[in-house]
Amino acid sequence: MSSNQQPYDELITELKRISLLGSCASVLNWDRETYMPSGGAELRAEQVSLIAGLEHQWATSPQLGELLENLSQTDLGADDSVEAVNVREAKRSYERATKLPQRLVEELSRVSALSQHAWSEAKQANDFSAFEPWLKQMIALKREQAACLQQTDGPLYDALLDSYEPGMTTAQVQSTFSQLREQLVPLVAKIAEASNKPDRTIVCRSFPVDAQREFSKQMAAEIGFDFHRGRIDVSAHPFCSGFGPGDCRLTTRYDDHFFNMAFFGTLHEAGHGMYEQGLLPEHAGTPMGRAVSLGIHESQSRMWENLVGRSRSFWQHAYGNARKMFPESLGNVPLDAFYGAINYVEPSMIRVEADEVTYNLHIMLRFELEQKMIAGELEAEQIPEAWNETFREYFGIVPASDAEGCMQDVHWSAGYIGYFPTYALGNIYASQFFEAAQKQLGNLDELFARGEFQSLKEWLNKNIHQRGQQYPAAQLVEVVTGNSFSADALIKYLKLKFGSLYHLE
Amino acid sequence: MSSNQQPYDELITELKRISLLGSCASVLNWDRETYMPSGGAELRAEQVSLIAGLEHQWATSPQLGELLENLSQTDLGADDSVEAVNVREAKRSYERATKLPQRLVEELSRVSALSQHAWSEAKQANDFSAFEPWLKQMIALKREQAACLQQTDGPLYDALLDSYEPGMTTAQVQSTFSQLREQLVPLVAKIAEASNKPDRTIVCRSFPVDAQREFSKQMAAEIGFDFHRGRIDVSAHPFCSGFGPGDCRLTTRYDDHFFNMAFFGTLHEAGHGMYEQGLLPEHAGTPMGRAVSLGIHESQSRMWENLVGRSRSFWQHAYGNARKMFPESLGNVPLDAFYGAINYVEPSMIRVEADEVTYNLHIMLRFELEQKMIAGELEAEQIPEAWNETFREYFGIVPASDAEGCMQDVHWSAGYIGYFPTYALGNIYASQFFEAAQKQLGNLDELFARGEFQSLKEWLNKNIHQRGQQYPAAQLVEVVTGNSFSADALIKYLKLKFGSLYHLE
Repeated sequence: MSSNQQPYDELITELKRISLLGSCASVLNWDRETYMPSGGAELRAEQVSLIAGLEHQWATSPQLGELLENLSQTDLGADDSVEAVNVREAKRSYERATKLPQRLVEELSRVSALSQHAWSEAKQANDFSAFEPWLKQMIALKREQAACLQQTDGPLYDALLDSYEPGMTTAQVQSTFSQLREQLVPLVAKIAEASNKPDRTIVCRSFPVDAQREFSKQMAAEIGFDFHRGRIDVSAHPFCSGFGPGDCRLTTRYDDHFFNMAFFGTLHEAGHGMYEQGLLPEHAGTPMGRAVSLGIHESQSRMWENLVGRSRSFWQHAYGNARKMFPESLGNVPLDAFYGAINYVEPSMIRVEADEVTYNLHIMLRFELEQKMIAGELEAEQIPEAWNETFREYFGIVPASDAEGCMQDVHWSAGYIGYFPTYALGNIYASQFFEAAQKQLGNLDELFARGEFQSLKEWLNKNIHQRGQQYPAAQLVEVVTGNSFSADALIKYLKLKFGSLYHLE
Repeated sequence: MSSNQQPYDELITELKRISLLGSCASVLNWDRETYMPSGGAELRAEQVSLIAGLEHQWATSPQLGELLENLSQTDLGADDSVEAVNVREAKRSYERATKLPQRLVEELSRVSALSQHAWSEAKQANDFSAFEPWLKQMIALKREQAACLQQTDGPLYDALLDSYEPGMTTAQVQSTFSQLREQLVPLVAKIAEASNKPDRTIVCRSFPVDAQREFSKQMAAEIGFDFHRGRIDVSAHPFCSGFGPGDCRLTTRYDDHFFNMAFFGTLHEAGHGMYEQGLLPEHAGTPMGRAVSLGIHESQSRMWENLVGRSRSFWQHAYGNARKMFPESLGNVPLDAFYGAINYVEPSMIRVEADEVTYNLHIMLRFELEQKMIAGELEAEQIPEAWNETFREYFGIVPASDAEGCMQDVHWSAGYIGYFPTYALGNIYASQFFEAAQKQLGNLDELFARGEFQSLKEWLNKNIHQRGQQYPAAQLVEVVTGNSFSADALIKYLKLKFGSLYHLE
């Protein structure tokens, strides 16, 4: 490495500078979603666009390209050494960035802003025809983007998937999803027929917002989110934004007659936040200090939300406090009734409120439609019908409107096509990691029941967070769990948990 | 102008781009003071420093210099035409900026962020020794900055004063301040001896924070601050930051046993905010769309806070509502007792809580110490003692701690040395403007008593805000009032108001 030290240091300095600039835009975006007054929208768009333009310019500079080219031809040590990883991943990003013409980048950013606005209004008016031209344009732009990025002779969709889940192919996702689906569909059917059903209305009683805020913040802190290095605010669409070391922002939203939304939303975002807080500060701004993929990020949020937060043992610890916080609604509710209510399984229209079992079916539906859109086999105007048909096939029900059907999510309007699969991949990774953690740490339920979450958090810090982008997702799974990527652990977990909850055999 | 149109347009585009970048830093600074978790301080310092460095680079580019040089040698119309003003002021800024080395700019920005953080913690712990090394570093940096900027053979302090109050000299401030002081000291003494004193404890009763928040926000909206284009939050040190058209942020702080702090603080910041909101959007990012000076800015905040907000006529309108909001504390208090309490005059420790009469003495003390710091005659470690000595000389009392002594204000930690005098200049300008407005609009008290604030606001919009930097402060005073800059109007106002309130002679 010694002869490369100077150009390598130059690279790191430049990567950190680019990342620091990007982190300024993150603050601006966070403020837009949390505190910005309505009159500030136009100025904010100009600010963010100025920074995005600069960032793209820096990230595609010929000097950076030359530096990367030279460094990648020299000996940087083992493939998973800090230096090799940083050069490999920086080169990957550079090559992707430079494949996109400036015109396309600007067009995508412009149309995305306008299209999200059109989507939001069309959704509110339940008027798909007002959104359709924007969706049509977005699909065309994403196909063009995919064609620029495409490296193999596989489907175009591969290139989009690779933006969010590097290294994962459409074929791999298809095969894993179909295995998962084969098991989930009969499980959902059995649950539907079960005679012993929890009372879901318990979580729809009155839950005063102030108490929700206090309780969910307290539990987020207990599982390990560090509020000295982060905070939580309110936004219409919950998110987590890690600005960099020492500052990670979460958001949630409150419904005073629905416990699950803010509470599990907070644990979910705290899970994302603990990943951001667990990255090594000395690698901040470089691939070694950045999350592997959206799927791995989602594995952290879904693990804390579901595998921990929706477990019976978590509530053995937390329920006493919950009852104190919500005496009117939970005072006379036994632990197991509450546990049943937060885990109620039912085919439903809205992905973000779906239970652990049906959630993945929502993703598969979107994955199926997205592949067709990008392959040119599904036009924008055909989407509502295709959505409803597939929905009936998967869930046995049909959305009453496009607003709670194909227009429920912001993603397509924003150009996030290829993003949805990472949500289900996150569930799969989460189960694999959790199984491995169980093996290494002993009975996690016993720990949770005592309010002991630190062992799991530290295990995740060490095995996942601190590795940054050392390994692509599938390889990380192998390194951490000893098994290859597979839906087996998720299937086993769901069958065991819901088999017991619904008294299935 | 026609032959210069193209280079002029180029100039405007570049000025707007530089200003837009600066506005990103304003958002980052606002967030640092309002919502940023403590762990984010270091990252924030890096972010702000990156942007400040870039901004300085753009603001000192040779291309910009050439453009300005060429334009300033051509005919741009009358001296106070939009084009002439923009070129004149842009050139002034360019010349100042190019005198500062990039290293110094970045260092100042970085140290300022860290030092403010250290100040905040040291103030809380009342531990000057923890702040001292930062203050020492800051004084050194500011002396270096002054030496770079210095144009005349006057005191170094001139160069710093000129950063905040262009065109004003240390000698002018000294002479005006000594005239003011000659009149204030006997006035304070007379008031101290007055037999008829209001009951100050009225404003120290219980004022629930929620009601304070609602009432002060409502009155800020009534005087004309537009909450669709702004908002108000809480920070340790209240401020106003106009990000640009459509987005202006105010902050305040609440004490549930002191009415004045949040209420008059809010009116004060709203006065600043109305200046920002009154600038013409089409000139945003250019000198014609920017405030004249800090002193003129302060004239707006002090006018709404004091000349309006602490007037009897304002409360003739507002007191009924105040009593409804705070029935327990004000229900049995007559209007005049309340009016006396909010105008209680007394030597006190804290500048921002000082009454209108003693306030200016707080400024003179800081002005005196700052001149010595910059002249190299006062080291950081000597400041607490010098503060306390001068305080005794001016006020006859000594602060019990450094937290309420020399560490009470954020300014020095942030590098704002030369800034304090603009507060007293603001009081002087405010009285001159108010006198002129009275002459042109008729009896303002009658309007205020009916809750009619729009005439004054529009008069300020037209005569001050919409002029941007068309005239330097002293000239603006002449154009607007027909009189030259002088403390006479302020002295007359204070003698009249407090002579009547305290039944003097």
